[in-house]
Amino acid sequence: MGRGPIRSGVTAIVPSVTDVFEHRLTASGFVLHGAGEVAGLTQLTEWGLLESPIMLTNTLSVGAVSEATWRLMLEQHPGMGTECDVAIPLVGECDDSWLNDAAGGHIKARHVREAIRSAAAGPVAEGCVGAGTGMVTCDFAGGIGTSSRKLPPTDGGYTVGVLVLSNFGRMQDLRVDGLPIGKALAADYATHIKRFRSYGSIIAVVATDAPLLAHQVQQVCKRVALGIGRAGSSSAFESGEIVIGFSTANRIPRSSARRVLQLDALLDRAINPVFQAAIEATEEAILNAVCMGDTVEGHSGHVAPGLPLDKVRALIERSKGR
Amino acid sequence: MGRGPIRSGVTAIVPSVTDVFEHRLTASGFVLHGAGEVAGLTQLTEWGLLESPIMLTNTLSVGAVSEATWRLMLEQHPGMGTECDVAIPLVGECDDSWLNDAAGGHIKARHVREAIRSAAAGPVAEGCVGAGTGMVTCDFAGGIGTSSRKLPPTDGGYTVGVLVLSNFGRMQDLRVDGLPIGKALAADYATHIKRFRSYGSIIAVVATDAPLLAHQVQQVCKRVALGIGRAGSSSAFESGEIVIGFSTANRIPRSSARRVLQLDALLDRAINPVFQAAIEATEEAILNAVCMGDTVEGHSGHVAPGLPLDKVRALIERSKGR
Amino acid sequence: MGRGPIRSGVTAIVPSVTDVFEHRLTASGFVLHGAGEVAGLTQLTEWGLLESPIMLTNTLSVGAVSEATWRLMLEQHPGMGTECDVAIPLVGECDDSWLNDAAGGHIKARHVREAIRSAAAGPVAEGCVGAGTGMVTCDFAGGIGTSSRKLPPTDGGYTVGVLVLSNFGRMQDLRVDGLPIGKALAADYATHIKRFRSYGSIIAVVATDAPLLAHQVQQVCKRVALGIGRAGSSSAFESGEIVIGFSTANRIPRSSARRVLQLDALLDRAINPVFQAAIEATEEAILNAVCMGDTVEGHSGHVAPGLPLDKVRALIERSKGR
Amino acid sequence: MGRGPIRSGVTAIVPSVTDVFEHRLTASGFVLHGAGEVAGLTQLTEWGLLESPIMLTNTLSVGAVSEATWRLMLEQHPGMGTECDVAIPLVGECDDSWLNDAAGGHIKARHVREAIRSAAAGPVAEGCVGAGTGMVTCDFAGGIGTSSRKLPPTDGGYTVGVLVLSNFGRMQDLRVDGLPIGKALAADYATHIKRFRSYGSIIAVVATDAPLLAHQVQQVCKRVALGIGRAGSSSAFESGEIVIGFSTANRIPRSSARRVLQLDALLDRAINPVFQAAIEATEEAILNAVCMGDTVEGHSGHVAPGLPLDKVRALIERSKGR
Repeated sequence: MGRGPIRSGVTAIVPSVTDVFEHRLTASGFVLHGAGEVAGLTQLTEWGLLESPIMLTNTLSVGAVSEATWRLMLEQHPGMGTECDVAIPLVGECDDSWLNDAAGGHIKARHVREAIRSAAAGPVAEGCVGAGTGMVTCDFAGGIGTSSRKLPPTDGGYTVGVLVLSNFGRMQDLRVDGLPIGKALAADYATHIKRFRSYGSIIAVVATDAPLLAHQVQQVCKRVALGIGRAGSSSAFESGEIVIGFSTANRIPRSSARRVLQLDALLDRAINPVFQAAIEATEEAILNAVCMGDTVEGHSGHVAPGLPLDKVRALIERSKGR
Repeated sequence: MGRGPIRSGVTAIVPSVTDVFEHRLTASGFVLHGAGEVAGLTQLTEWGLLESPIMLTNTLSVGAVSEATWRLMLEQHPGMGTECDVAIPLVGECDDSWLNDAAGGHIKARHVREAIRSAAAGPVAEGCVGAGTGMVTCDFAGGIGTSSRKLPPTDGGYTVGVLVLSNFGRMQDLRVDGLPIGKALAADYATHIKRFRSYGSIIAVVATDAPLLAHQVQQVCKRVALGIGRAGSSSAFESGEIVIGFSTANRIPRSSARRVLQLDALLDRAINPVFQAAIEATEEAILNAVCMGDTVEGHSGHVAPGLPLDKVRALIERSKGR
Repeated sequence: MGRGPIRSGVTAIVPSVTDVFEHRLTASGFVLHGAGEVAGLTQLTEWGLLESPIMLTNTLSVGAVSEATWRLMLEQHPGMGTECDVAIPLVGECDDSWLNDAAGGHIKARHVREAIRSAAAGPVAEGCVGAGTGMVTCDFAGGIGTSSRKLPPTDGGYTVGVLVLSNFGRMQDLRVDGLPIGKALAADYATHIKRFRSYGSIIAVVATDAPLLAHQVQQVCKRVALGIGRAGSSSAFESGEIVIGFSTANRIPRSSARRVLQLDALLDRAINPVFQAAIEATEEAILNAVCMGDTVEGHSGHVAPGLPLDKVRALIERSKGR
Repeated sequence: MGRGPIRSGVTAIVPSVTDVFEHRLTASGFVLHGAGEVAGLTQLTEWGLLESPIMLTNTLSVGAVSEATWRLMLEQHPGMGTECDVAIPLVGECDDSWLNDAAGGHIKARHVREAIRSAAAGPVAEGCVGAGTGMVTCDFAGGIGTSSRKLPPTDGGYTVGVLVLSNFGRMQDLRVDGLPIGKALAADYATHIKRFRSYGSIIAVVATDAPLLAHQVQQVCKRVALGIGRAGSSSAFESGEIVIGFSTANRIPRSSARRVLQLDALLDRAINPVFQAAIEATEEAILNAVCMGDTVEGHSGHVAPGLPLDKVRALIERSKGR
């Protein structure tokens, strides 16, 4: 330990619509079970504002990533700490110490810089990439997954997207659209050495262009938790299941000559399709994380196998009577 | 309206292990979505103590049931308000106004008295009974359901029981052990007039003899919420999805010569089997509510059909390839 | 007991700017210590909306007042329960059983009707009136108090008003603008029989025309709690210290053809003068409750004396070196 | 900026009663206003357990201190990440950028190591020391303060201690036992350049040997918030006012052959003297921070003067009519 193998990384979510430090977005979060950490969560939920990129990494690298992130933000906003407030970066984590030499503390400032620099719109790499490199979902390899739903125009036409850093569960927990696929696969892996000390965790980030106020974002975050439950999580005691979310519809300036802003807000139950979309996208994001994960070898002979996609497909077909 | 038909009632949960007003139980709650009411919830969660029976009824009867409940408690504890604190009864609700003449306010003190008087150990009536009389679950009749799990001795041998007052959902939401049974049934009811104004609600009560402290009970309540999600709820905006729970393992006396109590508490992750049991029992309790519900005719031609059990069974068999 | 004397009543806060059931106001709440009840609080804080009058009464009358309030609301909104949702009235309480025959349950629907009917703009009766009739603040008579601050135009010119139902504390706790007036008075009342079983409670309602979103109202409610602490409360274990608040600046329609609303929201730290005003107005409202209270005789020889205003004035003058 | 002057440091609270990683203490926290950060707070409040030293520093050093702390913990517990869970260190912050070259990021691992190594029982250095070096309380120098109360034997004889990292307020806010000392002093400093961009923050840590369960510790943390309010804070929008607490009375082993623990718990309202003590000790700890602070010169000509103790004493004497 302390020498490798390194199975870890950093994932950055950088809203492209605006410089969030100067033009903040409405945001909030929800803790399903708090045996984990999203540094900066307290301020996010108090203010209802996102003003930092959202960084994901392994548990023991939260400090290093937080440090590197504010230094980058300082480069972009040199007045931080003198002309304006200092930033509190958002850094979420799961523990990849089953595969990764976590105690080696291998994540450095350059990985943070690279993650933020390379953040881009378009397709998102999934599976064993970035912060998800050494993560394990229901005993299969795979940590980063994403999915989205686009509502029909009659529901506002909004998009709801979810990205997860998934690292939870036992094989028998895994459900695919409700089907107990994990139980069906378990016999094939009966002798495989699985992570046993910890149930693992999941961090989920939900974003939407629906015009949501902070307390509405928090409601959406709770539905993400329901999606996590549907995918199979029982949210174990040692599990950090933390959700953060934001809406890109309103910009709240850091400084302004105005005292009062006009914000768009979705009316009441017009939010229900957003809830439904958040649940579905979460389930699918978790599934994508594990479907895109290839077998990973870690330290001490630990191996997380890739999900056997052909078998999964066959099980699904069979349940549909085909 | 204001004249019937009456499709409502009262359900009482009265812990039999003790007089909870004098020898209180550790307790807590969790609000998944708060468009509903459990009167007394604030004190329950602050103190972490159950000291009242748990009453369930329809929304507009919460006041009447609360009033009748404290009067009954006063009969049993005549010192209330003079020699000791006054009680704040726990009264949860769902809105049965789709079938019931809710605005008639037909629940009276005698229904409360009868519900408490007839509370007994043993089998629990399910379906369209008590508070569940006019409730509708995923467009089918049925409101009261219950289920429990008994842990193996290696996990402590504890029992975890859940009772729900279920009144949520659209037909296409209903899932049975993950299977999208509701979607499969929906075509048969395409022309049936369904509740459309509201998504409905659910109140769940979880009880266990596992020795849980208040904050551990709250954690179990969150897993009940996951079970609600697995059964199909998307926890809509107009939905009150409120969970309360208690443990019978410790008694906290209302008055005592002692300053310090010794309480039993489950150690850390020994709680995980309780979590798993709470999720499963919740799913099954909801299923039982709707499986035990017979067709109910309400006002204005509203009808909630009973779940077609034969079809459900056939759908399940088919998914298993039988 | 059960026969009198009756030292209780009902206080109603009815926003005059709008019919809140149809055109709701942004709202929220905060529980400093939850050994009390505001029925309807769960929905208020979840939705961030006020849609009922705010009723105050004694603990054992919460059910009766809730029942009477929805019946009145039904008269005004006959579609409740058929064409639109049913209401969950807001009813806060303190326990006046030291002076009042609480167990007699003397509050009836007619008192609720009268309280709502007579609610009016302009000066507010204070002291031993309405719900405050039998309340006791730091062992002196007086329950209802109110105060407000008007911000200077440079801070937006907003008004922040607080109304309290105050029923907390021991004599030695009372502070007047920080001065330990209660301690100074205590010697004069050394032999007076004081409420000893309970520390009592306080319900506070804060309202403003500053344009606050729900999460901002919650922040203001927390500052009301600080004001309660400054007035002398240590928020004892048996104390229900619950704050609710609302802003009159935005109207959220119950039904609308629009999906998206435009809401005014105060920008970030422009809220600080509102915080300061809320603290000050709370302190003064509590002081007003007790300054306006005349000696009340209750049952069993219990007497709550009026605050000796001349002595208080003298003590304040002396501390200022006059 | 980025070159000095350095006016910052690290303060460590290391419970001496036990190795908290192996034998954890019941703990919790409360966020009065969350514009700040205590890294690790989510897990602390979820589990109700303290298992890390409590570190305090400036905002931009939270990451560096977190990183250094887990490395030290790893040295002491080499199985971390392999044989047992990884740690999430507790690191609280206030922003000292008014005096300190915060953006220089001068806090290094060696400062953390030194703070933990030198933590000792006995008198605590106060004022401009450790994390408090560059902190400013109501415009006067001073950040670290501590105070405690010992309850009489009739109340259990428990000790309640509070340590604050105080960095909040405007001069006119400062109150000494309720007296508006800050207002009285303000004229003397009318032309002094004061921190204007931010209201500042406070982190408070409360510890007791009273046997409190997690939810009871949280209640005590709320009373610490009341004490902060009494000392003068209006808890401004840009203020992080975060309280964490722990009880040393029970040890919860990280690993154990037992499934069920026996915990001592204070019965109900026996907690009231603890509440009162927490309020008083908080007020005094803040006062001590500022009374022990000597004038500090920072960057850009910023100077925080020491509190003029003679004047304060004179003002207090005068108010008492001496």
